[in-house]
Amino acid sequence: MYKFSRCEAYHRLLQLAEKPVDLTSQGVLNPERIEQMVVSACGLKFLYGMERIDTDVMAALGKLAVESHAIEKMKDMQSGEVINRIDGYPSEERAVLHTAMRAFVRDGYTGDAAEKARREFDKLRDFMGQVDKFTDLVMVGIGGSDLGPRALYLALEPYSIEGRKVHFISNVDPDDAERVLRDLDLKKTMVVVVSKSGTTLETLTNEVLVKNCFVNAGLDPKEHFVAVTGEGSPMDDAAKYLASFYIWDYVGGRYSATSMVGGVMLSFALGIDGYADILRGACDMDHVALNPNIMENMPLVSALISVWNRNFLKYPTEAVLPYSQALVRMPAHLQQCSMESNGKHITKDGARVDFDTGAILWGEPGTNGQHSFYQLIHQGTDIVPTEFIGFKENQGGLDLEVKGTTSQEKLLANLFAQALALALGQDNDNPNKRFEGNRPSTMILAKKLDPYTLGALLAYYEHKIAFQGFIWDINSFDQEGVQLGKVLANKIIDIFAQQRKGEATTAFPLAEALLEHIAPL
Amino acid sequence: MYKFSRCEAYHRLLQLAEKPVDLTSQGVLNPERIEQMVVSACGLKFLYGMERIDTDVMAALGKLAVESHAIEKMKDMQSGEVINRIDGYPSEERAVLHTAMRAFVRDGYTGDAAEKARREFDKLRDFMGQVDKFTDLVMVGIGGSDLGPRALYLALEPYSIEGRKVHFISNVDPDDAERVLRDLDLKKTMVVVVSKSGTTLETLTNEVLVKNCFVNAGLDPKEHFVAVTGEGSPMDDAAKYLASFYIWDYVGGRYSATSMVGGVMLSFALGIDGYADILRGACDMDHVALNPNIMENMPLVSALISVWNRNFLKYPTEAVLPYSQALVRMPAHLQQCSMESNGKHITKDGARVDFDTGAILWGEPGTNGQHSFYQLIHQGTDIVPTEFIGFKENQGGLDLEVKGTTSQEKLLANLFAQALALALGQDNDNPNKRFEGNRPSTMILAKKLDPYTLGALLAYYEHKIAFQGFIWDINSFDQEGVQLGKVLANKIIDIFAQQRKGEATTAFPLAEALLEHIAPL
Repeated sequence: MYKFSRCEAYHRLLQLAEKPVDLTSQGVLNPERIEQMVVSACGLKFLYGMERIDTDVMAALGKLAVESHAIEKMKDMQSGEVINRIDGYPSEERAVLHTAMRAFVRDGYTGDAAEKARREFDKLRDFMGQVDKFTDLVMVGIGGSDLGPRALYLALEPYSIEGRKVHFISNVDPDDAERVLRDLDLKKTMVVVVSKSGTTLETLTNEVLVKNCFVNAGLDPKEHFVAVTGEGSPMDDAAKYLASFYIWDYVGGRYSATSMVGGVMLSFALGIDGYADILRGACDMDHVALNPNIMENMPLVSALISVWNRNFLKYPTEAVLPYSQALVRMPAHLQQCSMESNGKHITKDGARVDFDTGAILWGEPGTNGQHSFYQLIHQGTDIVPTEFIGFKENQGGLDLEVKGTTSQEKLLANLFAQALALALGQDNDNPNKRFEGNRPSTMILAKKLDPYTLGALLAYYEHKIAFQGFIWDINSFDQEGVQLGKVLANKIIDIFAQQRKGEATTAFPLAEALLEHIAPL
Repeated sequence: MYKFSRCEAYHRLLQLAEKPVDLTSQGVLNPERIEQMVVSACGLKFLYGMERIDTDVMAALGKLAVESHAIEKMKDMQSGEVINRIDGYPSEERAVLHTAMRAFVRDGYTGDAAEKARREFDKLRDFMGQVDKFTDLVMVGIGGSDLGPRALYLALEPYSIEGRKVHFISNVDPDDAERVLRDLDLKKTMVVVVSKSGTTLETLTNEVLVKNCFVNAGLDPKEHFVAVTGEGSPMDDAAKYLASFYIWDYVGGRYSATSMVGGVMLSFALGIDGYADILRGACDMDHVALNPNIMENMPLVSALISVWNRNFLKYPTEAVLPYSQALVRMPAHLQQCSMESNGKHITKDGARVDFDTGAILWGEPGTNGQHSFYQLIHQGTDIVPTEFIGFKENQGGLDLEVKGTTSQEKLLANLFAQALALALGQDNDNPNKRFEGNRPSTMILAKKLDPYTLGALLAYYEHKIAFQGFIWDINSFDQEGVQLGKVLANKIIDIFAQQRKGEATTAFPLAEALLEHIAPL
């Protein structure tokens, strides 16, 4: 049976990591390397010539893909096998079928999940015929019902239908809702409440809060509120909503952006065709992830390189640095998608891992980051593998030639410069001006950030993350680690409720000690 | 001479780190510990009972503070010594006087820098008498001229003067400017352009871009544009601007939020008194940072604990998790402030460090993060020391009791629950439901996020970061690591410009290989 830290490729990679290629050495990083180390798919190019790898490392990584049956596992996932499980212990025991949410955009799709998704899509297309009376849409959701949809919306805002705007309420912090609601004309506002379970504390609390504002304004919430929830959940009550759309337990929150979770909002903003373009890009990348030719399987190559950096070169974090302000919240979405999927401590048979799993993922758009944390990336004591994202063209019409180049060209020049500076480094007599180099990066390049490209980019990351999990042999699709905090929070909420009623509380002395600190403030 | 990795306390701490206190052990984390391990100042409480420390560790950290002369160095900083330098090598050779930017709000201040700052403040107060014709303000700046001011504005938006809004353009990505400008009534818009050097590529490019829009709308930029820049910089040209305000080279960009860099915008939004309240909070914390009683010096205690986590328990990152949506961009500001200050590889005498310096800092507001990356914090293979921030009261009026508690109470309950869950962990027969615990956290608590409290919080972090640098004996006030990228970017910008003119380019083959990749897209 496959064990990551016992397989042949693992031991070969450990050896190779003792002396990784030195990118600062004269001639090693050359134009041919940059030209050749590339995978192309769906209009995206993935460049990896500035990683600390050579043909030996790539061969061993290829072997790792084979030994871990990575592509077979991807096939199992996309065909609906029950892969969300831990062998020998009670677990979620579910299929993982976010790919089915977009499979139906191509001819010849099969499967019950894809058929159900198509039915919701058709319902949504009809519903979009009735929403012209609304100018604003408020999404109420948290986690997967917030980060992914929000990242996509912000990425494609310039493609919005004129006169339509989207707003987001996620945090149980009441100031979050206040901030959004105070400037809105509620008469023209649609509210989409998203909770798969129909029991999410923050979302239900915010739904009550927002409904209350509608009632106080003399408006009937039923004419404004739309539900996106699991079939049969406590929120599945058509009588209470203007419309209801379904998701299913085989679509994880962090993988749900292309389902109705993101779909209702994105169709309102972009039109149903814009939403369908996102689905097409994602669906095409789903097919790429099944490509049995490892070195042409873009998300798999990317996953293998990240495993090299994490488990063999021992880098604890990775940064995603989009040179595109539109992707401002993409790192936050990927942070969830990656860290909630792969921040795990047991393998799929319940054994404690004896290797590192998911890295800490973080990032901000460039060039902004250059004026912020890049100092540490260049000269800090920890090495941060980075993934740059860049586009040949900007989205909007507004650009201007200043001193012989456009802003978009300046943006790309900075992106390229950073990757080269990190890899090459530079010596200097002044130690403060010395750059050690050998700081690895990859690069995603595309023509323009449009709906299709964004769909492909999103699915590329989803599959990269899934492949990492397949290689580590962990379950990337549950999130047991969030349960303990929920249980304790409910206990402390009970204490607050008891204190409001003037009752004595003694059940949880540690929490009470914390409450004692806020009382005199 | 003091060397961090040679001093007595360092070796004592190495020993103690071999067997840190086990918070999961019965009775170790008890109410008395939570009650007693606290420092209070300026309305903030800093709780550290959930760190893996005991009296021995605190004693050794106290000794480290003494051996490193941390408080004396803070005093040198605040009194204008030339501490931004590297001994024996050409360096910036500057004083570090962001504290002088707010010293004048208290009686009895002294010093030329504080006096100059007060003159700018008085100019600003007068200027605020003339801005009633504007409803919107656009900040054009990047890095320190963006992240800190933006974080502060978002944090205090509910305190804004009615009818006034602030917008930000930072990225050289032209879509960033487009997004901001398309909804504005330029006639009523003031633009504040901020660049200390007066030469920042992104800011000057965006200034041209925005000015162009004003000219195209038939408006005279001179009636709308305000400059914040260094005295004598290329931007210091009163004839071109409605008003000009000064900053000085002894105020680093990442420490400039309380100077005119943030001041013009914050005074427009909050009124001059709101801005002055921020300064008062910061100034009070500046005094706390000079407190010779180590265990009452809040930023110093916090810095010592973070050094314990970084250098002795060997944790590579730290997370800042505000349970307040208003602080949504505070982690991004702190990321710059911390990582650009302390992501360094040499000590102040130019020697390569033989220990880890600045950690990677990241974070998002709770409870949102709970539905995102907390899985990894609870059950991942890397341990992430976290700092939680919470408030007794929310900012706005909108809150509602749902099922016996308010949203604000639910927010606090979640904050407390997470800290306890991380520390205590929980055993279970099902390995997937096992939590190892011993994951350390600190907590900042305050009554309400108002301007004074935010000023104190900002200065707390500024001084924590400075203290870390003093303890490591590095220069936290330069940023040589960003230079190489700038040099290479300019070379590549030249290639783009040559290509536009149809000229052949051969000077930089690696960059040209990258450009080859985008040409066919």
